[in-house]
Amino acid sequence: VFQLSFAPFLPSLQGTRDYGPKQMAIRERAFNAIISCFKRHGAEVIDTPVFELKETLTGKYGEDSKLIYDLKDQGGELLSLRYDLTVPFARYLAMNKITNIKRYHIAKVYRRDNPAMTRGRYREFYQCDFDIAGQFDPMIPDAECLKIVHEILSDLQLGDFIIKVNDRRILDGMFAVCGVPDSKFRTICSSVDKLDKVPWEEVRSEMVGEKGLSPEAADRIGEYVQLHGGLDLIERLLQDPKLSQNKLAKEGLGDMKLLFEYLTLFGITEKISFDLSLARGLDYYTGVIFEAVLLHQENEHVEEAVSVGSVAGGGRYDGLVGMFDPKGRKVPCVGVSIGIERIFSILEQRLEASEEKIRTTETQVLVASAQKKLLEERLKLISELWDGGIKAEMLYKKNPKLLNQLQYCEDTGIPLVAIVGEQELKDGVVKLRIVATREEINVRRESLVEEIRIRTSQC
Amino acid sequence: VFQLSFAPFLPSLQGTRDYGPKQMAIRERAFNAIISCFKRHGAEVIDTPVFELKETLTGKYGEDSKLIYDLKDQGGELLSLRYDLTVPFARYLAMNKITNIKRYHIAKVYRRDNPAMTRGRYREFYQCDFDIAGQFDPMIPDAECLKIVHEILSDLQLGDFIIKVNDRRILDGMFAVCGVPDSKFRTICSSVDKLDKVPWEEVRSEMVGEKGLSPEAADRIGEYVQLHGGLDLIERLLQDPKLSQNKLAKEGLGDMKLLFEYLTLFGITEKISFDLSLARGLDYYTGVIFEAVLLHQENEHVEEAVSVGSVAGGGRYDGLVGMFDPKGRKVPCVGVSIGIERIFSILEQRLEASEEKIRTTETQVLVASAQKKLLEERLKLISELWDGGIKAEMLYKKNPKLLNQLQYCEDTGIPLVAIVGEQELKDGVVKLRIVATREEINVRRESLVEEIRIRTSQC
Repeated sequence: VFQLSFAPFLPSLQGTRDYGPKQMAIRERAFNAIISCFKRHGAEVIDTPVFELKETLTGKYGEDSKLIYDLKDQGGELLSLRYDLTVPFARYLAMNKITNIKRYHIAKVYRRDNPAMTRGRYREFYQCDFDIAGQFDPMIPDAECLKIVHEILSDLQLGDFIIKVNDRRILDGMFAVCGVPDSKFRTICSSVDKLDKVPWEEVRSEMVGEKGLSPEAADRIGEYVQLHGGLDLIERLLQDPKLSQNKLAKEGLGDMKLLFEYLTLFGITEKISFDLSLARGLDYYTGVIFEAVLLHQENEHVEEAVSVGSVAGGGRYDGLVGMFDPKGRKVPCVGVSIGIERIFSILEQRLEASEEKIRTTETQVLVASAQKKLLEERLKLISELWDGGIKAEMLYKKNPKLLNQLQYCEDTGIPLVAIVGEQELKDGVVKLRIVATREEINVRRESLVEEIRIRTSQC
Repeated sequence: VFQLSFAPFLPSLQGTRDYGPKQMAIRERAFNAIISCFKRHGAEVIDTPVFELKETLTGKYGEDSKLIYDLKDQGGELLSLRYDLTVPFARYLAMNKITNIKRYHIAKVYRRDNPAMTRGRYREFYQCDFDIAGQFDPMIPDAECLKIVHEILSDLQLGDFIIKVNDRRILDGMFAVCGVPDSKFRTICSSVDKLDKVPWEEVRSEMVGEKGLSPEAADRIGEYVQLHGGLDLIERLLQDPKLSQNKLAKEGLGDMKLLFEYLTLFGITEKISFDLSLARGLDYYTGVIFEAVLLHQENEHVEEAVSVGSVAGGGRYDGLVGMFDPKGRKVPCVGVSIGIERIFSILEQRLEASEEKIRTTETQVLVASAQKKLLEERLKLISELWDGGIKAEMLYKKNPKLLNQLQYCEDTGIPLVAIVGEQELKDGVVKLRIVATREEINVRRESLVEEIRIRTSQC
């Protein structure tokens, strides 16, 4: 009668992963640190569907658009899996006419990438996004986003890190003064974006060969993108005879200076590097952009390039919401996205290297019996405990051996055992055993919930 | 230079929904109740990818398979969005050779349904699943699943409910004694499954017309599926001259009796109805099946049928894991799935009807200034508070009016305002205002974190 078709053994789906209980416990720790930070900064939370109309995602991601997962046309609208949480957020704001919100959103996004799982890259992965939307005075929300990255990376103790910052206006101004034609700004920007993965010579030959930029312009860009520093570099570029003549670059540099002033007040400039090679791949950025990079990769054997350690990124996108509004009304936005998969890997490796034993349940007590034929009594007692709000388990056997029941507690870290026996039932008590000390005490049945609560209040 | 393509105003994507901050606050409440219950029963948590290999889902869902969302073939494997959390769980167990686990999983699933959103049906929706896998003594885990449904529905105070139970073996035995050919068991079962939505006459004509069942067999089925009751009905059917001769039915009825004994010990039989019309659509069930239905629909104007109120379902599926194992090794499983969307709707409607004002942030204090030119001082202070673990916000303006700052607290429920001013800065204090009482006190700057913590410890 069982008419199910037989499926052969299934290989693991490349570029995705299951999270078992242990991984989930680690994941929860990381999420808690991140969510705490987002809440500390007063963020609300929203959620959007995993798929969007295909047209919603079209033309937002530049060369990365080829990585979008489309759903099969099975009738109805054409749908795609979300590529990030930023475009759905902008669509949400426009659709609901929201002009002012600070929100976080933690959810999975999808990319048809060539998965390189050893480097912590997946086709399905979590993003933890915090964004501030609204018309505000310059660089105050932008500075807060950087403060958030700083707080989260410090809190998670991932080792030393640096947050690179740049500004799309500085990049565009730089392209202009280097002689890049307007129409090539975005594609040259995509080339610059590769500098964290490939050497300048390769990027240069892409610019000149594939993208038809003049060698002179490429070389001029090559000069600029070597530069990184702090306030001093900003001041120097504000005096740069070419850049200072470009309106966009001047605006960007002025705001960058303001940003550094605010970051000084936050006390975090030590970890911030104004870096002219930072470009970010996505089309929608319009102002400040940034990316956080881990400098030392603990517990990892080989490290190919610094960029592998990128764990957060973001920037300002003042034009995106307007693209979804019928009247093109803009809502300025700035936000940060924490790339959590790499952080999980590090925390996982660290835990494995340590002696720490991680519990995967919160069970306070195991309901056990020392004699046979007490299944009904165990069911009655565990039901009382559940109804009293106690986290309780029992073995699903009619007549389990006491030793097996105690062993289960050892294996899973359950601190207490409530043992029912003939004598205890007659006396109206339950024998409570403390697993760690093997101490046993009789507790009146009506006090059992309270007794367990007190004894596990530190759990 | 902005080369993004313009997207016209986008209509809402039918059958999906965005969750705004208010809805999220309600959703969190419901999730918390459900997760607390799952943890109370000692469950671990796992997570699996949103898509699976298409072949993983093939042949598991019977007639509902047409509702599976496929991804477009863009090269690589053929993928589908998960239809439920049960099949991915079974695949996970087989792949990791796990024979014993109690886990929960809360995640979105996808169905290409004709959305009827007023009835709380979506194409993307959350399922909250709790399952027990392993070889155990009969009906103990099955009873716990029903206890869990009972606890959650009681805890959420959704009004009166009933949990219908049946067993696939009883259904199959019933089909056999009614004269249904073996090959038609599953398809006739699918017809019976519609009884909660359409009247018997329609189901009968589907059986006879579309599915070619003899009218006599259909009428015999019609007799049985009217029956519902408790232990008394089980006893009666165990004496039924035809059913009692059928091995499967006898096994199912024996276990049903045992189940009712355990549910009596849990004290929940009052809400349980053994109902021969309950069939459940999915192919993979092999034993006990159940479904929880809300009886009264508070705050709703029109109610078409009782079945609209279905909020949880589940059952035993002992064959599913074996389908994913290369040697066909079976792992018996039983589980429950809470259909949370309908529960959200009810909670949302209830909140709207009530006077309760729901906060969407946890911000403890707003950092404000009474005079102009104090942006830098506000940034310094808020940074200290964040670093001290305080949830703090400020307005992103250089010179906000005090009135606007106080109004923001009123609007968002922030209980405290930390006001910096020239005099306070000189004196090394901060003025702390309690929004509710308008009381103002000077607090030494080094004690501010502690003072805020104490004053908001009930929040």
